[in-house]
Amino acid sequence: MAKHAYSRRDLAFQLHEVLRVEELTRFPYFQDHDRGSIDLVLDTAGRFADTLLRPLLAALDRQEPQLVDGTIRLHPGVGPVVRRFGADGWISALFPYAEGGQQMPHAVYNAAVFAMQATNYSASVPPFLTLGAANLLRSFAAPELAAAFTPPMYAGRWQGTMALTEPDAGSSLSDITTSAEPTAEGYYKIRGQKIYISSGDHDACDNVVHLMLAKIKGSPAGAKGISLFVVPRQRVAQGLPKGTETPADLVGNDVVTAGIYHKLGCKGAPIAHLMMGGRDDCHGYLVGEPNKGLGYMFQMMNEARLAVGVSAAAIGTAAYHAALEYARARPQGRPVASRDVAKPQVPIIGHADVKRMLLFQKATMEGALGLLLHCSYYMDLAQAAEGPERENAALLLDLLMPIAKTYPSEMGVLSTSAAIQVHGGAGYTTDFPVEQFFREARIHPIHEGTTGIQGLDLLGRKITQHGGKAVGLLLAEMQAAIAAAGAHPELAPLAAQLGKAVATLQQVTGHLLGVAAHDHELFLADATLYLELAGLVAVAWQWLRQATVAQGALPAAHPDDQNFYRGKLMAAQYFYEYELVKAPGLAKRLQSANAVTVDMQAEWF
Amino acid sequence: MAKHAYSRRDLAFQLHEVLRVEELTRFPYFQDHDRGSIDLVLDTAGRFADTLLRPLLAALDRQEPQLVDGTIRLHPGVGPVVRRFGADGWISALFPYAEGGQQMPHAVYNAAVFAMQATNYSASVPPFLTLGAANLLRSFAAPELAAAFTPPMYAGRWQGTMALTEPDAGSSLSDITTSAEPTAEGYYKIRGQKIYISSGDHDACDNVVHLMLAKIKGSPAGAKGISLFVVPRQRVAQGLPKGTETPADLVGNDVVTAGIYHKLGCKGAPIAHLMMGGRDDCHGYLVGEPNKGLGYMFQMMNEARLAVGVSAAAIGTAAYHAALEYARARPQGRPVASRDVAKPQVPIIGHADVKRMLLFQKATMEGALGLLLHCSYYMDLAQAAEGPERENAALLLDLLMPIAKTYPSEMGVLSTSAAIQVHGGAGYTTDFPVEQFFREARIHPIHEGTTGIQGLDLLGRKITQHGGKAVGLLLAEMQAAIAAAGAHPELAPLAAQLGKAVATLQQVTGHLLGVAAHDHELFLADATLYLELAGLVAVAWQWLRQATVAQGALPAAHPDDQNFYRGKLMAAQYFYEYELVKAPGLAKRLQSANAVTVDMQAEWF
Repeated sequence: MAKHAYSRRDLAFQLHEVLRVEELTRFPYFQDHDRGSIDLVLDTAGRFADTLLRPLLAALDRQEPQLVDGTIRLHPGVGPVVRRFGADGWISALFPYAEGGQQMPHAVYNAAVFAMQATNYSASVPPFLTLGAANLLRSFAAPELAAAFTPPMYAGRWQGTMALTEPDAGSSLSDITTSAEPTAEGYYKIRGQKIYISSGDHDACDNVVHLMLAKIKGSPAGAKGISLFVVPRQRVAQGLPKGTETPADLVGNDVVTAGIYHKLGCKGAPIAHLMMGGRDDCHGYLVGEPNKGLGYMFQMMNEARLAVGVSAAAIGTAAYHAALEYARARPQGRPVASRDVAKPQVPIIGHADVKRMLLFQKATMEGALGLLLHCSYYMDLAQAAEGPERENAALLLDLLMPIAKTYPSEMGVLSTSAAIQVHGGAGYTTDFPVEQFFREARIHPIHEGTTGIQGLDLLGRKITQHGGKAVGLLLAEMQAAIAAAGAHPELAPLAAQLGKAVATLQQVTGHLLGVAAHDHELFLADATLYLELAGLVAVAWQWLRQATVAQGALPAAHPDDQNFYRGKLMAAQYFYEYELVKAPGLAKRLQSANAVTVDMQAEWF
Repeated sequence: MAKHAYSRRDLAFQLHEVLRVEELTRFPYFQDHDRGSIDLVLDTAGRFADTLLRPLLAALDRQEPQLVDGTIRLHPGVGPVVRRFGADGWISALFPYAEGGQQMPHAVYNAAVFAMQATNYSASVPPFLTLGAANLLRSFAAPELAAAFTPPMYAGRWQGTMALTEPDAGSSLSDITTSAEPTAEGYYKIRGQKIYISSGDHDACDNVVHLMLAKIKGSPAGAKGISLFVVPRQRVAQGLPKGTETPADLVGNDVVTAGIYHKLGCKGAPIAHLMMGGRDDCHGYLVGEPNKGLGYMFQMMNEARLAVGVSAAAIGTAAYHAALEYARARPQGRPVASRDVAKPQVPIIGHADVKRMLLFQKATMEGALGLLLHCSYYMDLAQAAEGPERENAALLLDLLMPIAKTYPSEMGVLSTSAAIQVHGGAGYTTDFPVEQFFREARIHPIHEGTTGIQGLDLLGRKITQHGGKAVGLLLAEMQAAIAAAGAHPELAPLAAQLGKAVATLQQVTGHLLGVAAHDHELFLADATLYLELAGLVAVAWQWLRQATVAQGALPAAHPDDQNFYRGKLMAAQYFYEYELVKAPGLAKRLQSANAVTVDMQAEWF
């Protein structure tokens, strides 16, 4: 196993030097935090990762969960991790003091999550799902309902899930058929089935609390008739739980685990097929108002999408550090300029093509991390700031979300693939962790909305909403980054290239909005490519910001830090030379009149 | 499992309509073949695949080979496949009648191999390795040595291997240390170890015949001191085998299986770690002359590289057909233009983004297959033609080989990834075959020379050798394709784009040769990108050839065939619109003065 899964130095750089995250403490909500407490969070996360998560990386992959007697059995190492995660306050850390939380900034929290997930993504899945479900409850459920379920979730004793997908309703959630029938006792009777439910059942917690989409009988068709329910796997005999129940106090709630899915990767995190109401005795408790479930879920899906981006960048980063370590240690071949076989072989990091692969990983993953932490920062502003600062942050976050989900996900797969390539034949064997990373990375372009769905969200919704105000704000941010880079003549070529890429993106956007006026299908046909182009520009923006800081810090830096800053500057160069250079090709296709994917007919394949 | 792993119609199109493979029968070596016999070969391969290989696809993946008591135990289904493969003549089919072969054209044979490997790649690995090893023996070994080992190999009773890699010598073969010491009895004593030896040991054959690189004591350092040996796992007590031995007639040859590698994919095909000469009793028999081993091996590596390309295209094609079948059957969502939830959902093949992913797979994989069969055809000309036709074919083959190996390998990984994406969450589960294809595809950019090594071969060697004669021949072929497309005005835009792309490639080549004159490291630093650019142009050439045939055949075709030809024309459009459009970006980077990957230092990462 590689010694490092991520760079602690880079987290400090991104949070303190680029984002200046400490400035958040000017807001009352974050006023108790400071540089010392932020660093303590990162160090604590690192220790948690090293001591609890790292030893389980291969073990969880090789001892797959199994469905035995109606319950999914996990590797015995997962239970202690989940409990400790709750006990240490990681599930509630983002929430207000009044709810037992720490009012931690998302930017800091997501940096800590990144460290944990780079170390062992699978092991982190159950507790983070509990966080998402708990957040849904505290945000939208009546106080007594939230109070009944959240305390054992915060403690890591009860698992939370998001139960959306059904056999006939994946990307098309408006087609769900799970039903909810009101009763005189106030609860609803739930009936239906859900598939692909992450952590939908397992033996590492005492109970599972599903946040489940269902349709109340008689509700409108489609998305407008979907409600959100709490559907626990086990309930108390009467009324709502008090949160202090032991397993002996609970009875079954007619939620049956009908199956488990075996998967390409992320094997430590089980996925269940659930059947509700087979005995007509599945109780569900309505969250918020009827028929507003999809809206509640989508608000949380925004956080979930950012979380997927963080996970994807984390795995891609772990793969980068594994490849880097291997490339430093593995001797093979000799310099192109002097192939003298009498001389010893050199470490492969000496070969330009290997450096190219490592720079690809570094440039895409550290660029992605910059974007993710920047979005997290916007999330903090949208929560703690006031007036236009708050509104603008919310708009920017909303606009950037499909990019922040997709860019790390798509490039994460390629980063893990590059890590295998750096290892050569060794990388294809289970003797090294990179083949596992390659398998784990592949889920991220799929869950929480596929890349295709994210493209439709960006081009079909986000670009135009609020009269294009969010786009204007983002352009202003990019222009500000270009202006700031102006302090360093060395960065003039990068700044000029970003300016050009931004202009290209604007031109393409204008062209497509013109198409939208007369042909909606053609307008959206290449939305995935538009998303790819936007991702290139967004990450180029992040690299200009990082390069500006590195260039400024370089002259006065200690020698070790000089190496770090030089690496940053080279990675920025790499991104512009090898990645951003793809923008004109994408732009050309996006403005082509040839509607090949629309015109293609199913029977011609 | 998907119903189809490949398109039999496409094989007929590529062989008969595009390549006109029957014209090979004008050469005496191929004169006994005709359209009927060629189609019979393809149909027979299809039946072999359906009845013997298809049932083992998931089984071989899930019952991994294990090292038990010094021998690797395979799934019991492999033995019968290997025997039948030999008994049906597939191992010797390419060889002359005089050696028991069928003098089959490579173009036909590789189409048959493609059909088998699309159905089950892992199961095909052992027999095709035997073919490669047997071909080495018959090409370079003394007749009595070849006669001793090849008959049981042809029969599928003895496994053949290529034993090159050692712990310190992978891409850098000149660093091998396995030694060979002459004895008075004529054989050599072999001592050393080999790693990652495909089919290096297993219980589905009676013996294993390693074609092994080793250094005769006292030979020159580096590549000039490497010899090739036959090193059987078991030998006869005295002298050479007669080929009629039963297992009881054999004794151990001091080749010990020290380990087995577990891998990401291709699990049905075992990879062994071998130790030779631990008891100082490992006999090896010199093939050909001393110190010429690397040259012999590289001649065979050309065939092996084409074989890797075929394997990669086969897996990527199987993934395409699985995705296509799923997309036709899976209802999800509604047309962009009318999202009426009261109407039923449509099959996802109706969505432009899904058609885009399927066209990506079709365009890359059918384009790759065209290139591979064209190279196979050159191989046939290089064998059967005479004079300049023969020499030119050999030059073209040599030039195209790194592209024919790499393009299908790199795009095969992306095709399998796209297949998962088309399936959505289902594709990530083991309920569908595409996750297995994704794992199996990943080996191809690595073995038989990594993509980086292929790039160095193309740019550093193939472009310039023979005074650039091969490049001139290829340009002439491309110009001929452009001229032929001129018969159809519909194809004028594609022809013009190919002309432009060829000019771009020439310009880049000229630029890089200028760099070579003063900086060899910089010249080769982006060889992988150069290979990528050359791959785009080569496959665009293939698509213009395919489009020209399809356009010509369309007016008079039966309705079913019209669909086929329209699909070809759309895939050609797709390739030019979405893939070839990447060429200018690559060209820009390849001509940039920024030497970022050379300048980057190890300590800056």
